[in-house]
Amino acid sequence: MTTSAPARPIRIAMLGCGVVGTEVARFLLRDAEELGRRVGAPVELVGIAVRRLERTRSLDIPSELFTTDAKALVTRGDLDVVIEVIGGIEPARELILAALESGASVVTANKALLAEDGDTLYEAAVKAERDLYYEAAVAGAIPIVRPLRESLAGDRVERVLGIVNGTTNFILDAMTTTGAGFDDALDEAQRLGFAEADPTADVEGFDAAAKAAILAGLAFHTRVTIADVHREGITEVTAADVASASEIGSVVKLLAICEIDPEGSQVSVRVHPAMIPATHPLASVRGAYNAVFVESEAAGQLMFYGPGAGGAPTASAVLGDVVTVARHRVDGVFGPGETVHAQVEVLDIGRARTRYHVQIDVEDRPGVLAAVAEAFAVHDVSIKTVRQEGRGGDAQLVVVTHEADDAALAATVGQLRDLEMVRGVSSVMRVEGVS
Amino acid sequence: MTTSAPARPIRIAMLGCGVVGTEVARFLLRDAEELGRRVGAPVELVGIAVRRLERTRSLDIPSELFTTDAKALVTRGDLDVVIEVIGGIEPARELILAALESGASVVTANKALLAEDGDTLYEAAVKAERDLYYEAAVAGAIPIVRPLRESLAGDRVERVLGIVNGTTNFILDAMTTTGAGFDDALDEAQRLGFAEADPTADVEGFDAAAKAAILAGLAFHTRVTIADVHREGITEVTAADVASASEIGSVVKLLAICEIDPEGSQVSVRVHPAMIPATHPLASVRGAYNAVFVESEAAGQLMFYGPGAGGAPTASAVLGDVVTVARHRVDGVFGPGETVHAQVEVLDIGRARTRYHVQIDVEDRPGVLAAVAEAFAVHDVSIKTVRQEGRGGDAQLVVVTHEADDAALAATVGQLRDLEMVRGVSSVMRVEGVS
Repeated sequence: MTTSAPARPIRIAMLGCGVVGTEVARFLLRDAEELGRRVGAPVELVGIAVRRLERTRSLDIPSELFTTDAKALVTRGDLDVVIEVIGGIEPARELILAALESGASVVTANKALLAEDGDTLYEAAVKAERDLYYEAAVAGAIPIVRPLRESLAGDRVERVLGIVNGTTNFILDAMTTTGAGFDDALDEAQRLGFAEADPTADVEGFDAAAKAAILAGLAFHTRVTIADVHREGITEVTAADVASASEIGSVVKLLAICEIDPEGSQVSVRVHPAMIPATHPLASVRGAYNAVFVESEAAGQLMFYGPGAGGAPTASAVLGDVVTVARHRVDGVFGPGETVHAQVEVLDIGRARTRYHVQIDVEDRPGVLAAVAEAFAVHDVSIKTVRQEGRGGDAQLVVVTHEADDAALAATVGQLRDLEMVRGVSSVMRVEGVS
Repeated sequence: MTTSAPARPIRIAMLGCGVVGTEVARFLLRDAEELGRRVGAPVELVGIAVRRLERTRSLDIPSELFTTDAKALVTRGDLDVVIEVIGGIEPARELILAALESGASVVTANKALLAEDGDTLYEAAVKAERDLYYEAAVAGAIPIVRPLRESLAGDRVERVLGIVNGTTNFILDAMTTTGAGFDDALDEAQRLGFAEADPTADVEGFDAAAKAAILAGLAFHTRVTIADVHREGITEVTAADVASASEIGSVVKLLAICEIDPEGSQVSVRVHPAMIPATHPLASVRGAYNAVFVESEAAGQLMFYGPGAGGAPTASAVLGDVVTVARHRVDGVFGPGETVHAQVEVLDIGRARTRYHVQIDVEDRPGVLAAVAEAFAVHDVSIKTVRQEGRGGDAQLVVVTHEADDAALAATVGQLRDLEMVRGVSSVMRVEGVS
């Protein structure tokens, strides 16, 4: 609240000046006056640490702001806010800790670090009595950290389903729209700049897994690291899978899924491709957009949608946090920290409750349905629907199950593959977003 | 941040115990322990003011909590948080002011009061150094106040398009789905409990206008009251309008629209039915759901979606605010207030820039298109598309314009109605959500 006259300037330093950092600096310099009014004190960008000065010359940023000595910058002692947009584990962690110890609040977009070792940072922020804000770390410009941490703080979040990686959503959307296979869709995404030359972090689900860990921690007031997250990427998703999804009125999405059981004692946090009904709000999230769908006891179903990456959108999230923590600095206070009092068990994927869609190529002869049904039954997996289509001497069975332990479903699929009458299991995918 | 040992209890009182209040009380009582962990201090509901005690007997709430003396409750002097869910202007205003003066922070769901006289409340909160939070006042459970006030505080919001009234969205959705007229759709909405017996506040757009005023103030850091909002309801929307929309790949929605010009010096705040493209994210908001679509310079396009009304969803928003302001009370701080430094002019509707869709029944003879085109030209309204369909001796012209001053468009329509060759103007509606 800005009741008093503008106080001493809020001094801001930034670590890193890549795609996001350049946009942050540009807005901070251009809008300093307006941001100062919102903060209640002048804001001043006092330094930017980069690895190599040569690359900064082409930027429209005063050269005297740049330094290669990041450690000296964050420990100069008069900073109010340090923005960290280097990414990765080190030196980001060391610098963030040094900044907090030196009395600065920190705004970071570093999902990898938060998902790997958030606890160290959260505890350092508490000890330093400074803010650690990270809206930009999950789903880019979409406000999701603040809604989970504050807006839903009086509610019980039951499930979070997120499309939190734009590259994979672009690829799966292209496969859905054009019928292309994964490789062709990836080529197209790379050509258009939606996938990196080495797409591993995106297509193998590492990026989404980091965000899932952060979301689960926030949603369920507990500690979750990336090591707790079951992760499957989209490289095995075939055009046939996408077509199968379409036949049951669904689309394939890479989902970050965070669920808690009704007793609030066990959570499942996982990233994998899944079929969701075309009528689900997440199904219409196209291209490289992100969205996070939240189900809570009182609020019901909420969705947050927007650009999940990119320089300017991520800068928007960073600067929202900068204004918030700068206001706190002006008032000499700090915001809500992590609440991790609910120490809940993170379930192994085998114990997660899921549904499966299984497409089985079988010989078209008497007894085959009975044999297939038996494979489900012996693993205690209940079948919701089965559809048989004859195809010459062959037939195809499409089975959608009720919810069961993931391990039981996987074992069922394993047994199906071994059945003599089964020629092949052509599509296996989890089904989500069905109530 | 909850670093210290749990302090003295946070004492909460509530004004009103209707649909929303009952749910708030239920969750507060049931989840006191968990909410206390999130706040960092025990939370205690100490009193509920109601008009008549008789009606409280059927509620599962301890009878000793109830009182009919609201004034005595809010001024007892030991309260940390007062929840106001009475609604309306008085006695809500008087009680909120008394609560703030007595040292309590206030959480309110009262859109009518905030839109009519928010300034008085905001100033009282600043003076008392207490919080005034109102997430529940706009779009029910959807976190939109906090994202606008905090997440986007470092960005420039350019436009807000909101579906912020569930009743009208339900009616328009039913008209779209079934082809029904307004009266039949309203009957159905009333039968299903989505519209009140007296639906005026909803169908005439008063409810949406109050929310538009609040949204515009937050988005543009300025003061907007409901008197500044141009308001048109949906009672004039016909089945023909909905069919016309469908023919151009659009749907009809009642929108709350808040726009600022590129210089940031003029805003337009209005509520009216409009055609939006079926591909627009708002188009797929079905039934009684709400959504707020935000366009900002850096973040791009964001959407927030969820239930816009109802006891439990609104209670979720109220309780999120309760936890936030209770944390502030524990720490002896308060959150960001309103920023109204940008004193921008609110434009009259005539000067708002809009597009029109106009469907004109004309005689099918030479010169008619020229005469119609001339009517647009003399008012300096540029035609984007025109489509002619012959129908026996008659024809129908469907014109979609480029953006122009609303007054010029209205004058054009007026002139069209006067043309001899024009039998009638069968559908006139603004077009939004087109880039």
